[in-house]
Amino acid sequence: MSADRLKVDLVESGTIGRISPIRVERRGDLDPTNGVTRPTGTQENKNIRDYAVKRMKEAGLEVQIDEIGNIFGRKKGSKTNKGTVMVGSHLDSVINGGMFDGALGVFGALEAVTRITDEGFENQRPIEVAAFTGEEGSAFHVSLLGSLVLIGNLELDKALGMKNDEGITLKDALEAIGYRGNFHRGLDNVEYMVELHVEQGPVLDKEKISIGIVENITGMTWLTATIEGEENHAGTTPMRMRADALVAAADIIRFVDKRANEMVSERDGSTVGTVGKLNVFPNGINIVPGRVEIGIDIRDVVEENMRNLTQEVIEALKALEDKHGIRTNVEIQFVHSPTPLSVEVAKIIEESTDTVGVTAKRMNSGAGHDAQNVAKKVKAGMIFVPSVDGISHAPTEWTNWNDIENGVKVLTQTLKKLSKT
Amino acid sequence: MSADRLKVDLVESGTIGRISPIRVERRGDLDPTNGVTRPTGTQENKNIRDYAVKRMKEAGLEVQIDEIGNIFGRKKGSKTNKGTVMVGSHLDSVINGGMFDGALGVFGALEAVTRITDEGFENQRPIEVAAFTGEEGSAFHVSLLGSLVLIGNLELDKALGMKNDEGITLKDALEAIGYRGNFHRGLDNVEYMVELHVEQGPVLDKEKISIGIVENITGMTWLTATIEGEENHAGTTPMRMRADALVAAADIIRFVDKRANEMVSERDGSTVGTVGKLNVFPNGINIVPGRVEIGIDIRDVVEENMRNLTQEVIEALKALEDKHGIRTNVEIQFVHSPTPLSVEVAKIIEESTDTVGVTAKRMNSGAGHDAQNVAKKVKAGMIFVPSVDGISHAPTEWTNWNDIENGVKVLTQTLKKLSKT
Repeated sequence: MSADRLKVDLVESGTIGRISPIRVERRGDLDPTNGVTRPTGTQENKNIRDYAVKRMKEAGLEVQIDEIGNIFGRKKGSKTNKGTVMVGSHLDSVINGGMFDGALGVFGALEAVTRITDEGFENQRPIEVAAFTGEEGSAFHVSLLGSLVLIGNLELDKALGMKNDEGITLKDALEAIGYRGNFHRGLDNVEYMVELHVEQGPVLDKEKISIGIVENITGMTWLTATIEGEENHAGTTPMRMRADALVAAADIIRFVDKRANEMVSERDGSTVGTVGKLNVFPNGINIVPGRVEIGIDIRDVVEENMRNLTQEVIEALKALEDKHGIRTNVEIQFVHSPTPLSVEVAKIIEESTDTVGVTAKRMNSGAGHDAQNVAKKVKAGMIFVPSVDGISHAPTEWTNWNDIENGVKVLTQTLKKLSKT
Repeated sequence: MSADRLKVDLVESGTIGRISPIRVERRGDLDPTNGVTRPTGTQENKNIRDYAVKRMKEAGLEVQIDEIGNIFGRKKGSKTNKGTVMVGSHLDSVINGGMFDGALGVFGALEAVTRITDEGFENQRPIEVAAFTGEEGSAFHVSLLGSLVLIGNLELDKALGMKNDEGITLKDALEAIGYRGNFHRGLDNVEYMVELHVEQGPVLDKEKISIGIVENITGMTWLTATIEGEENHAGTTPMRMRADALVAAADIIRFVDKRANEMVSERDGSTVGTVGKLNVFPNGINIVPGRVEIGIDIRDVVEENMRNLTQEVIEALKALEDKHGIRTNVEIQFVHSPTPLSVEVAKIIEESTDTVGVTAKRMNSGAGHDAQNVAKKVKAGMIFVPSVDGISHAPTEWTNWNDIENGVKVLTQTLKKLSKT
């Protein structure tokens, strides 16, 4: 049975990179200390690539490895003059992550193509299952790496020269595991791209909706700020003589949360603002904090909203100086603009959910995905399936098997429709 | 010259326990990375004890070591039926601390007694210079240790059985450095106690006042609290679906600061409230914080104020639960009641500042001192001298030499007056 075939692939590939390589077949099997770890260039990364290549070949696909290690498994189309439909995701993982993040999009694509083949459906366009290199950035510290090189927004030589924490270049790491190919893919003959992925957020799960049809991938800005007050003895320094860096930091934490909430209400928007990282120095219970370092993550699918909130936060940090007698310094780590996905592909995914007969909603992605790179060059879309409790990037990430089956059914329909356009 | 004698003792003893044993004679010599480290039982602790004992003997004092390693150097009084005036402080230090904290009170006492002897002044009462064991608690994790045993509020056997981080008992540690004595001091024949100490706060320095006459030693409560929210992806979790532990923590940081400030204003009080320690988990810029641990320090010389603020903070933590959808847990680590010092001794110190002709103000101590233990049994007082910028427990702790000379002059007058009462 085809549903079992995908489950076997996910359970089997889900043993790769676990400290203790258990087979997780149900949510109760999950162990919060035993996630999957498969950064680019590791033995575990080689093992799951080997597994995927073997399965692609068994499915009759022609496998090619490109210069940055992206894997492509091609099913020919019946018409030679039509652009390809690319479908896939990634096989690498964060440190101690979940078994579905990325892997579902690769093995789900393989399953969809297998079903299309098995039922003798005539795909006019070629369909190519893709597994992109280094989506998570957990080894070489640039996320969406393989797709970034594919679309030409990062030079191949620059990417291959990047080093991991052991000082090994990506070129050497890929050669060591046998995935430095010489195929140059490019996107000139690609017409569409679809990525199936777990939502990694709580919306579909809480609202009990089977499929998310992604319209936009969020823009993202990272700020790091330092607040310098005066380190003092907590017993001997009167309140009026303090410059407490943590009290000032508390103001900015409240500000980011309050303004992000207000922007959601005011504009029915997708704004999120988070102070996820905060370090106190010297961090002694009886010492007035002298320095606080914070990391702020601001996202919105509307670029203007993201830039406005970023500017407001920078101004609010500056305003703390007079109020608290502290000094601040803020750095913008990066600004990624939001990416709209293809309206045409979203419409076809929506029709497919009708054909399959499952609930669906239009939504945005708050996380980054390879589809956002590919979308800069070709018409791209994304299909989300529910993440239980919204958990991802953690060993306890889970998606129910019936939701996975619904996702694959919708993906299969979508590929069939796209391959005939 | 006598002023030089004390300077030599402080500079010389201030080389002991430094990584690089430089002689610090002026503020410009200080190196923020090269403080003094002399926890109880270490070689450095032995070295400074040996130095003090040698100097006590040179000054003609009879030296005895008690069962917990406290050092007493006795100058006989002219009347045999009168209780002793004890005067001293401690020789141990925090890790990477300053050269005056404690040492000033021991070597300053020795200098005062030497001056009294040199001028042929007849002290009716015996005067005893004391150096208490383990005031800082940096090795055996109980502060004010030697004075606590001296007053009988900690059993000798229990104290000697306590272990440091290497698992060595205090008994073995004291024996190893030759400071486990068999003298039982007790306080039955002690009438007064005086401690000279650096303020460790900014008040005298900012207000340009030479001497602080301590009326009360603050009460202190330590709370540790855990705030449990939900760890989530910062990009994919909408604002309304969050239970952000750090946003809740920001509320409590603001509350502690605001209420402590209000209590100072409302009651012209000494309240201080500090969140000095805060740890975020998992502490990733793109992860909504799932757990925050905080340490809160609350002090007041009025016990009721301290207890009220503690109760308010506990209730405010509880109130966060509904507001933020988080869970909280709070533990009271300890409650130390405030200690009033002797009104009689304070008056005599005040008269002494008039005699010497220096500015003085009545104040409270926001830090703990051995005098607060001794005050439970005998009439005790404290003399503060200014700490430059209020800095202490740090290598950059500094007190100007003329302020030290003023402190010793006031201490000398005070001892003379007390020894004739």
